[in-house]
Amino acid sequence: MDYVKEDDTVVVRLDPGEQVLDSLATVRDEFDIEHGFLTGIGAVDSVTLGHYDVDDQEYLEEEFTGQFEVTSFLGNIGPDKIHTHIQVGTRDFETLGGHCSGARVSGTFEVVIHLGETPLTHHLDERTGLDVFDI
Amino acid sequence: MDYVKEDDTVVVRLDPGEQVLDSLATVRDEFDIEHGFLTGIGAVDSVTLGHYDVDDQEYLEEEFTGQFEVTSFLGNIGPDKIHTHIQVGTRDFETLGGHCSGARVSGTFEVVIHLGETPLTHHLDERTGLDVFDI
Amino acid sequence: MDYVKEDDTVVVRLDPGEQVLDSLATVRDEFDIEHGFLTGIGAVDSVTLGHYDVDDQEYLEEEFTGQFEVTSFLGNIGPDKIHTHIQVGTRDFETLGGHCSGARVSGTFEVVIHLGETPLTHHLDERTGLDVFDI
Repeated sequence: MDYVKEDDTVVVRLDPGEQVLDSLATVRDEFDIEHGFLTGIGAVDSVTLGHYDVDDQEYLEEEFTGQFEVTSFLGNIGPDKIHTHIQVGTRDFETLGGHCSGARVSGTFEVVIHLGETPLTHHLDERTGLDVFDI
Repeated sequence: MDYVKEDDTVVVRLDPGEQVLDSLATVRDEFDIEHGFLTGIGAVDSVTLGHYDVDDQEYLEEEFTGQFEVTSFLGNIGPDKIHTHIQVGTRDFETLGGHCSGARVSGTFEVVIHLGETPLTHHLDERTGLDVFDI
Repeated sequence: MDYVKEDDTVVVRLDPGEQVLDSLATVRDEFDIEHGFLTGIGAVDSVTLGHYDVDDQEYLEEEFTGQFEVTSFLGNIGPDKIHTHIQVGTRDFETLGGHCSGARVSGTFEVVIHLGETPLTHHLDERTGLDVFDI
């Protein structure tokens, strides 16, 4: 992993074998990020997708392994939660997507984080069981 | 819905049952937004997808109901038009996507809007029948 | 094509028949962009998707023609490389996605480029055969 911070952005390059979410947590800790919105693209050889069941208030998760292009990686970083969704394309250009519960880099992975001021802390929404923005 | 405005961004959290596009129109009116580019993720239980037929110059629309993770929500806000595309993942992590003609929040929905100066007004492109950026 | 530059962004509108990547290269040259992260939506009638095989160190490419909504277009611009991934939706709202090796606009195409300071130059990663961020 390598990264560079400017005034209000951080650019991150992840390398083969690195876990995307763990790496972002490291970057968050390095710069004490309390508010970041991110976009990214890259390639992964393992991705764990989640689908939240609002009625049962739990995530269904499934791990997919193979060679995937990451066509979109979007989300945000708060002091207490990193929340991202991911979309991947297969060798046949078919796509899979959902909540990102984990992803391991295969080729490269490029992320830009746009920083802001308001801490993106979360509180529990009892209707859904989700931790949501407390803004 | 809750939102917070900083210098050049607005962060929005939408809540269960709220309509995404109507809510963004409310935010636009609240802050007189004439130029915004947005990214978002979340979950919806209803989404109306559109596909524009350039030859017939009309949108084909279809509503899908169920539990969907929103893997990408991208677009922009002008004084006279809010234009977004949306991609959703099903419980089986399959994906659907197109022009966003409507979406209702189920879990939560998190949007960041990056503001700019140049008004994103639109004019009609007679070749396609679309209202396009007049920049 | 039309575009407008503000302090740290460039907004681009592409028109029917224009090539997305060539047009972005023109914008890069016009403003000497050495660091840009972009998001976009639009519609295309031809898209060439790529899938990188890390073992063979080559892209498999396939061209798709038809009417497609572009549900996400994400990537970045460096002085020596424009790297984008694209996701498109068909008339049936099914999706295809991968590395973007080419795309031709049908309806309209709207891109915002966020500029930064650090040049996004690249070096070869011999493990993967990819040119990656040298940051």
